[in-house]
Amino acid sequence: MGEVIYTGKAKQMWSTDDPEVLRVVYMDQATALNGKKKDQIKGKGQINNEISTLVFEYLAKQGIKTHFIKKLSPTEELVHKVEIIPLEAVTRNIATGHFVTRFGVEDGLVFETPVEETYYKSDALDDPFINESQTLALGLATKAELTEIWELSRKTNQLLTELFAKADLTLVDFKLEFGRLSDGTLVLADEFSPDNCRLWDKKTKAHMDKDVYRQDLGELTPVYEEVLARLQQALKEEK
Amino acid sequence: MGEVIYTGKAKQMWSTDDPEVLRVVYMDQATALNGKKKDQIKGKGQINNEISTLVFEYLAKQGIKTHFIKKLSPTEELVHKVEIIPLEAVTRNIATGHFVTRFGVEDGLVFETPVEETYYKSDALDDPFINESQTLALGLATKAELTEIWELSRKTNQLLTELFAKADLTLVDFKLEFGRLSDGTLVLADEFSPDNCRLWDKKTKAHMDKDVYRQDLGELTPVYEEVLARLQQALKEEK
Repeated sequence: MGEVIYTGKAKQMWSTDDPEVLRVVYMDQATALNGKKKDQIKGKGQINNEISTLVFEYLAKQGIKTHFIKKLSPTEELVHKVEIIPLEAVTRNIATGHFVTRFGVEDGLVFETPVEETYYKSDALDDPFINESQTLALGLATKAELTEIWELSRKTNQLLTELFAKADLTLVDFKLEFGRLSDGTLVLADEFSPDNCRLWDKKTKAHMDKDVYRQDLGELTPVYEEVLARLQQALKEEK
Repeated sequence: MGEVIYTGKAKQMWSTDDPEVLRVVYMDQATALNGKKKDQIKGKGQINNEISTLVFEYLAKQGIKTHFIKKLSPTEELVHKVEIIPLEAVTRNIATGHFVTRFGVEDGLVFETPVEETYYKSDALDDPFINESQTLALGLATKAELTEIWELSRKTNQLLTELFAKADLTLVDFKLEFGRLSDGTLVLADEFSPDNCRLWDKKTKAHMDKDVYRQDLGELTPVYEEVLARLQQALKEEK
């Protein structure tokens, strides 16, 4: 079964017989407010694994390199081992949440050009917002890697905005993480699920993402299941 | 005498007979912690006016465009009226203060390449740290203006690092502000004094700037007078 090599807020990474391959286990855990709010939510791990699998397979088909290999079981997947770049790359198509309180703009403001932000992944420092100059000074990534991260993020934004639109969902914002394979290739890592993006229903503007949990708006599982069902339908129509 | 058109934390701006010219009055006020700490410090306005005059005249002689016209009295100067770009452009040669607590690096770490940061000038929002993408999305400055702001900041850093070195002072970090003249020309505005930079004594590493006030390290006026005296000496040797 291998050994646990990393335990995150919603996933565990296990080693496998192949030193270049890891097994990801999606857990039924939700956290918010940097871990201050924490709950077990039955079924969440399984749904996120399914959504993320669909999204990563879709992106791979469109030419985006990812760490994803295959889904292994309802709650597990196999991925290429990467050295994670300790940055969260956030893309915002619409102003909401933290951005609104930080900069005093209207909630729902649609950006002409998507806003791009990086956060330094560090629990000890509370994931501080960081700019490019600081990132380079701290040696967290090279200039070339940052360029590639934003090229991949922009392409991902384009592809997923279109895909979710077909599922009657607006992709409001999302967070990506990237890593280096053993040969240095930069690939999309982590997951893509309603845990790390915001999705609004096209018609009702209802929250269809982790904001349901963050803001105590009701049961999370039925919402995530609805996202999964719509995504499956949209992908079926794709073919 | 004109009318007060702006009151800042340490300066007042007055209109003059010429609509394109303002009178700046340096006040004897010191603030820290975003205005939560505030004191009257006799003589501070006069010293800062003198230091800033010397620095702006020096920069102008080296080809940096500034808003500065001339010193008018011990506490007053005349400047070209500008539309202020609501950004603080911070350059860090050495990690200290906020940077150290934010990113968990060693106090005194010398950066290979200076770190560049912008803050959105907004009292209501507590001057939040802002990146380029956010700055463009909020329309605070154009891409061309940001490029010019950093070109001018880098040139200023080079010139002032050398100048202060001759005064046995290390220029640790500093904050600049920029504005547009009525014809759109971007110029260096605000002031340059130990209020908006950090200076460490080359030998003792003693604080020779507003950290003396922020950290309650003793009397501020004698320290600022020492900076002024050393700067005058360094400029005399220049000639």
